[in-house]
Amino acid sequence: MSVSLPAPKHSDLLAISGIKLGIASAGIKTVDRTDLVLIQLAESTTTSVVYTQNVFCAAPVMLAKQHQNEASPRYLLINSGNANAGTGEAGLQAAQDCCSAVAELTNDTKNAVLPFSTGVIGQQLPVDKIKKALPDAFQDLKADNWFDAAHAIMTTDTVAKAISKQVEIDGNTITVTGMAKGSGMIRPDMATMLSYIATDAAVEQLVLDTILHNAVEQSFNRITVDGDTSTNDACVLMATGQAANNTIDDIDSAEAQNLYQVIVQISQQLAQAIVRDGEGATKFIEIQVEQGVDTQECRQVAYTIAHSPLVKTAFFASDPNWGRILAAIGRSKIRDFDLSKVTIYLGDVCIVNGGQPASDYTEQKGQQVMDEDEITIKVELGRGNAKDTVWTCDFSYDYVKINAEYRT
Amino acid sequence: MSVSLPAPKHSDLLAISGIKLGIASAGIKTVDRTDLVLIQLAESTTTSVVYTQNVFCAAPVMLAKQHQNEASPRYLLINSGNANAGTGEAGLQAAQDCCSAVAELTNDTKNAVLPFSTGVIGQQLPVDKIKKALPDAFQDLKADNWFDAAHAIMTTDTVAKAISKQVEIDGNTITVTGMAKGSGMIRPDMATMLSYIATDAAVEQLVLDTILHNAVEQSFNRITVDGDTSTNDACVLMATGQAANNTIDDIDSAEAQNLYQVIVQISQQLAQAIVRDGEGATKFIEIQVEQGVDTQECRQVAYTIAHSPLVKTAFFASDPNWGRILAAIGRSKIRDFDLSKVTIYLGDVCIVNGGQPASDYTEQKGQQVMDEDEITIKVELGRGNAKDTVWTCDFSYDYVKINAEYRT
Repeated sequence: MSVSLPAPKHSDLLAISGIKLGIASAGIKTVDRTDLVLIQLAESTTTSVVYTQNVFCAAPVMLAKQHQNEASPRYLLINSGNANAGTGEAGLQAAQDCCSAVAELTNDTKNAVLPFSTGVIGQQLPVDKIKKALPDAFQDLKADNWFDAAHAIMTTDTVAKAISKQVEIDGNTITVTGMAKGSGMIRPDMATMLSYIATDAAVEQLVLDTILHNAVEQSFNRITVDGDTSTNDACVLMATGQAANNTIDDIDSAEAQNLYQVIVQISQQLAQAIVRDGEGATKFIEIQVEQGVDTQECRQVAYTIAHSPLVKTAFFASDPNWGRILAAIGRSKIRDFDLSKVTIYLGDVCIVNGGQPASDYTEQKGQQVMDEDEITIKVELGRGNAKDTVWTCDFSYDYVKINAEYRT
Repeated sequence: MSVSLPAPKHSDLLAISGIKLGIASAGIKTVDRTDLVLIQLAESTTTSVVYTQNVFCAAPVMLAKQHQNEASPRYLLINSGNANAGTGEAGLQAAQDCCSAVAELTNDTKNAVLPFSTGVIGQQLPVDKIKKALPDAFQDLKADNWFDAAHAIMTTDTVAKAISKQVEIDGNTITVTGMAKGSGMIRPDMATMLSYIATDAAVEQLVLDTILHNAVEQSFNRITVDGDTSTNDACVLMATGQAANNTIDDIDSAEAQNLYQVIVQISQQLAQAIVRDGEGATKFIEIQVEQGVDTQECRQVAYTIAHSPLVKTAFFASDPNWGRILAAIGRSKIRDFDLSKVTIYLGDVCIVNGGQPASDYTEQKGQQVMDEDEITIKVELGRGNAKDTVWTCDFSYDYVKINAEYRT
């Protein structure tokens, strides 16, 4: 189940010069599916990564951070089916063994390999299976492989998430292609589940870091399915420098801003795709909070609404039970909150005006909005000029079913 | 559905001298059930109340606070079926009209009446129905009516919640009887859904306030079903002074402490009954967090676990998917968190020891604990001596069903 989320077509996804992807089936959780992706980066590539803020971060996250400090990444190794999280010293050794296996196969150093894992937490990674499948992935390396890679990294996702865009910079056509996976345990915190975005543009490291950080703040860090921040989140942005543009070395330049806009669009579409494919989702909900003192308090109100199980189940039922939205706003703990200034819209229907029930609201008007698959809630706090937006989905029987049966 | 929660028997509930309760059927949400309770307090009664901290508090909460400041409460009027929340000025007028109707009937002043409502949010209170049923409730006033009152205040509760205890003070037998309602929108914040506890002891106002505040902190403020703080929460403690004890006027006296212990026990049992009867609950879960720097951080970790939809659905499935507990702890945002000091138990089975997977853990041991109806999670943070406990329940299909169909 997913909300207005068409599957990407193979032909929509553009190759990025300097990036090759190889796919294999290691049989990590189940057989008969691909679950291993090796990504090869040209030597000219600049790479930026943001990781989960969860303190119990997974072994591959710890190791990827360390390797990134030691060497310039040349390979990314991604597996689905097992998160290698909560696996202690043995898990760290497993991640190291996988990187060593890649190094042996590619004649590179092991710290040029960044490992990423996603799937069940608390089970040891089957290193032997991965090592056995690695040569297949290596053999399969090719530029035109984003479609299969986007499928291989899926776990409870029902639709693959990948997109390409192009932009003119310095008279050159620059291509950006990104993919992501994620459906549950989604409330990214400085990163998302797993996302890989690549461009052939030449971009200096600090500019690339800034672009990634800002793009994530406006996309992956504004979505939530269930409030559960993953142990394995990571978002990688790679710039191969294979296009003919002059290296972008100033974040304020027109070139940097052009590239940034495309990367934000791709990030937002991937982030929203994760919500549209949220576990059990039947509705896609945009929560806009405006007129706040600062964006932080706007976000706080938006997330309180987005995480309320009562709001989420009312959306599942298409029930305009707006009292639950109001109750969530009321418990969102913002300072010196004056509810007589609050106005709330469900779609374009005003439900609360200056803290009072809107006089022209009718249940029929509310029902019309709730019957849609995509719904916007707008809250005006009436105390400033800041605003922020969060995207989420509803809570359905299937969310419970998927998560009750996940390991069976 | 509820977890190990026997229904109270009529004969278990002891009358409190100085308190009479009258029940009626006003047909507020449905016919064929009782939904109105009038409680009459003897003039000698001292009354203490704590209310919800939700900024969007309901009209009856606003009015009860005001009346409490103006006069000594003589009547409590409680209705189920409609929360009179999110109803603006009209809702406030409705609550006032109900109090006036009680005043007229009883020849008392309207500010001696405290109104309480629980049920659907955002619909106007049917004042006429309530006024019409009030004489029935007034006629029905009697001391031996706690059993029927506990049933009349129920909404999505499946089991009535009421209990009596006795304690010797000054050589006199003091009786305490309490009742509560609540099942969803439960994460009380300085109060609970609705709870009424009465004693015949003579207690001075400030001592009563302290007893109530402390008892609530150890009971209703330590439970959560879904993290949603209600707009209507209130907990009332009444001391009628009809027993022969000397008025308790020192919180540190043996008498005050004896009474306090009984009230804490009753509060905890009622609070736990709310969790056991949590919407769709199939498991009762106690989360103990120990060895913290202060109780605040222990509570923060406990609530993060208790609110995790992934933890709650794993409990529903009796799945020892402990990685989800670990992920919740990891995102609980406590400062300078060193996971190498963390130890976690599921029941008496150690699952994580010093941040590493426990070497003697087996899936079979974890499964045995998860198969129980009542489960304890213990987290040792290894950084101090503070501890705190929170009670919660699992997340089931029925939680979604109940809240998707609530208004239909």
